[in-house]
Amino acid sequence: MKKYDVIVIGGSASGIATAITGKNAYPNKSFLMIRKEKQAIVPCGIPYIFGSLHDTKKDTISDKIFEKNNIDLKIDEVTKIDAENKTCTTKDGSMISFEKLVLATGSKAHVPAWLDGANKENVFIIPKDKDYLDQAIKKLSSAKKIVTIGGGFIGVETSDELKKEGKEVIIVEKLPHILGTAFDDELCEAVEQKLKERNVEFITNMGVSKITGDDKATGVELENGESISADAVLLTVGYQPNTKLASDAGLSLNEKGFIRVDEYMHTDNHDIMAVGDCAEKRDFVTRKISTTMLASTACAEARIAGMNLFKLSAMKTFSGTIAIFSTALGDTGYGVAGVTEKTATQEQFDVVTGSFTGVDKHPGTMPGVHKQTVKLIAAREGGLVLGGEVIGGTSTGELTNLIGFIIQNKMTVNNILTAQIGTHPLVTAPPTAYPLIKAAEAVARKL
Amino acid sequence: MKKYDVIVIGGSASGIATAITGKNAYPNKSFLMIRKEKQAIVPCGIPYIFGSLHDTKKDTISDKIFEKNNIDLKIDEVTKIDAENKTCTTKDGSMISFEKLVLATGSKAHVPAWLDGANKENVFIIPKDKDYLDQAIKKLSSAKKIVTIGGGFIGVETSDELKKEGKEVIIVEKLPHILGTAFDDELCEAVEQKLKERNVEFITNMGVSKITGDDKATGVELENGESISADAVLLTVGYQPNTKLASDAGLSLNEKGFIRVDEYMHTDNHDIMAVGDCAEKRDFVTRKISTTMLASTACAEARIAGMNLFKLSAMKTFSGTIAIFSTALGDTGYGVAGVTEKTATQEQFDVVTGSFTGVDKHPGTMPGVHKQTVKLIAAREGGLVLGGEVIGGTSTGELTNLIGFIIQNKMTVNNILTAQIGTHPLVTAPPTAYPLIKAAEAVARKL
Repeated sequence: MKKYDVIVIGGSASGIATAITGKNAYPNKSFLMIRKEKQAIVPCGIPYIFGSLHDTKKDTISDKIFEKNNIDLKIDEVTKIDAENKTCTTKDGSMISFEKLVLATGSKAHVPAWLDGANKENVFIIPKDKDYLDQAIKKLSSAKKIVTIGGGFIGVETSDELKKEGKEVIIVEKLPHILGTAFDDELCEAVEQKLKERNVEFITNMGVSKITGDDKATGVELENGESISADAVLLTVGYQPNTKLASDAGLSLNEKGFIRVDEYMHTDNHDIMAVGDCAEKRDFVTRKISTTMLASTACAEARIAGMNLFKLSAMKTFSGTIAIFSTALGDTGYGVAGVTEKTATQEQFDVVTGSFTGVDKHPGTMPGVHKQTVKLIAAREGGLVLGGEVIGGTSTGELTNLIGFIIQNKMTVNNILTAQIGTHPLVTAPPTAYPLIKAAEAVARKL
Repeated sequence: MKKYDVIVIGGSASGIATAITGKNAYPNKSFLMIRKEKQAIVPCGIPYIFGSLHDTKKDTISDKIFEKNNIDLKIDEVTKIDAENKTCTTKDGSMISFEKLVLATGSKAHVPAWLDGANKENVFIIPKDKDYLDQAIKKLSSAKKIVTIGGGFIGVETSDELKKEGKEVIIVEKLPHILGTAFDDELCEAVEQKLKERNVEFITNMGVSKITGDDKATGVELENGESISADAVLLTVGYQPNTKLASDAGLSLNEKGFIRVDEYMHTDNHDIMAVGDCAEKRDFVTRKISTTMLASTACAEARIAGMNLFKLSAMKTFSGTIAIFSTALGDTGYGVAGVTEKTATQEQFDVVTGSFTGVDKHPGTMPGVHKQTVKLIAAREGGLVLGGEVIGGTSTGELTNLIGFIIQNKMTVNNILTAQIGTHPLVTAPPTAYPLIKAAEAVARKL
């Protein structure tokens, strides 16, 4: 029987990051990655294979990183974990033993049981599966009109890409706003305005009662009885953790169905860790169990797991998920870090908010300048920063990450008011009106 | 005699930021801004009036902000400060009394006394003076070949803009590298490579012995005896603090000629503060007196001064200048925060560095993707982050600001290794290879 010091199951973002961080931290240990997909693809890039990239081949992760890092790779599927004897059994009949095991089994696109017609032809989900996606691109190429069920990130980004390719697209969202679970209303409204400009249609506050058609989908019927005809239907209503292997192995799941983990990413078996979409998440601010699934969060968990595999570091723990999202439509970026005002208020935090709109280059006459808005959400108590939102140009992602650092390091509005920043006409807002600082001033006035 | 609670002398970035922050913090106090220029211009935008903006009119700061913030504005020049009786006398003969005075008198372009020929026609400095700059743009329009003396930010940015306008430009720099005082060598070399691609010529390791010509400049003579002919010469060898008013009023200057200030920005007179280019700076890391002049640093000092005008806050102090620079040439951004490896080593810090090159969007096949390199400089002791450098695309400015936050909040490499970030194909590096985190890993491997 083959024996490895560490086996990682799952070869997407968090599996890769665990294996590489782990091997880096423990170079003398042997690492095996077991992945069922022949070819790993970049998960966040999937919406863009339907437009900008035109092909799944352009959205792949090369296996060279395993060779380079001296990590063995086995394309196979683990069918059973024997936690007591510390072995994995795979589809090809191998049994491999481990000292430490990391579950990075990810999530699968959710098909709601109540939705009638989801198994018809020309109904597509967005799984992290190259073969499926290749087929979907091919079949969608002849579709003229597409209905997307679900106005979350995957739904919005994929719909926008398909529109760029000349399709007629309409998003149907059950919540009052597009991206409504991620952003505060004013940011959702900005996204909706941008979608309108880009001729991506959408209906909000409206559920879908069924997908119509015989064998092939011909559209959807809405909860108000109206029908929308379409040549294809995209189903993007979220993902669910892959946890069967874990629960079969006797590991505990939480009330939302994720694998229970501690702040070092241990499951309730000290030799088995779980990371990424399959692992339990707790919100950094609200401390509630969260269902946020992000490749970036997954990789943060993965680094923690990798570093703590054989030797625990009390300085390197995962102390809760700070939801940090960013996206872009055309040249406009949208980002959020931490809790929104909506969530903070629901959870009964006593918060103060402030926002400021300026420009992302300066002076405002600079070619390529884009408006930049920053909103901050801070606790009235001590001015602790709990969240922030950004609308801007291409620097939105990094500015959102800066706010993420502020939140996870428990900084207050004072830390922003006294902050030194660097500014330059071509790459940032002006020093006199840097929106992050002006937003902090707006908060401070109310404290 | 008119009386104001606060008088601010100087209407560029730091004067404006002091007045607005101060009025914000103390709305019941009366504020007067005294500025000698008829029209304030955006200092960092000046290089771009020679190209992208084409006109000083596009680089102005509107006076509406004063009206909006209920701050009086007087276009006049203060000729004398009576510190004992707390009055200012101006050129038009007014005498105005103050409770608190803030000096934001800025800096002037340096014309070295040893340089023969600097007063010839067609030799230009880059002052923050709209009338002078209007004349310079006009005169430079007929020049075909221009020599720039000094390869600092102003010299490089202005030369690149003039080249874009079709001029032949050559930069002469005395130090071994272009931007050599700001960046480590490898980053300087990347800038030099980019200048070559953009056909901006440069000579390094070479001083200028004189500017040639009779009344009009005809070029320069180099220290090696060679001559370069030119229709115009730009002199960009640095700036010097404007401190005459302060020293005439009996305020102390430091050994580099800047107005002495404490961490609340008080001069040695408790009722007079100084901020911006005229005020003393101490490096955040080396703790040495520094001569770094940046509008962004100036505005950070200004905010501290404004907030502390009448009531000191021990939580809102200026604890030293973190040099945070960013610039861009074409679509490539360059940034640095804190100390370079060069400075750290000179000052005898025991440092460890690590760098990583990835991409600023992902996957690397994404349209508009740009390489992104992050280098971190950390103390071996505790892994405290002392500096960082970035080469990337348009998000370089904000990523550099993120590193600035890490430095000023005394974070360690561990804080980066455990950090949660947000990633998105269109606006950031991938989650598995975010250069800031990979650079921290490279540092950690050596600790």
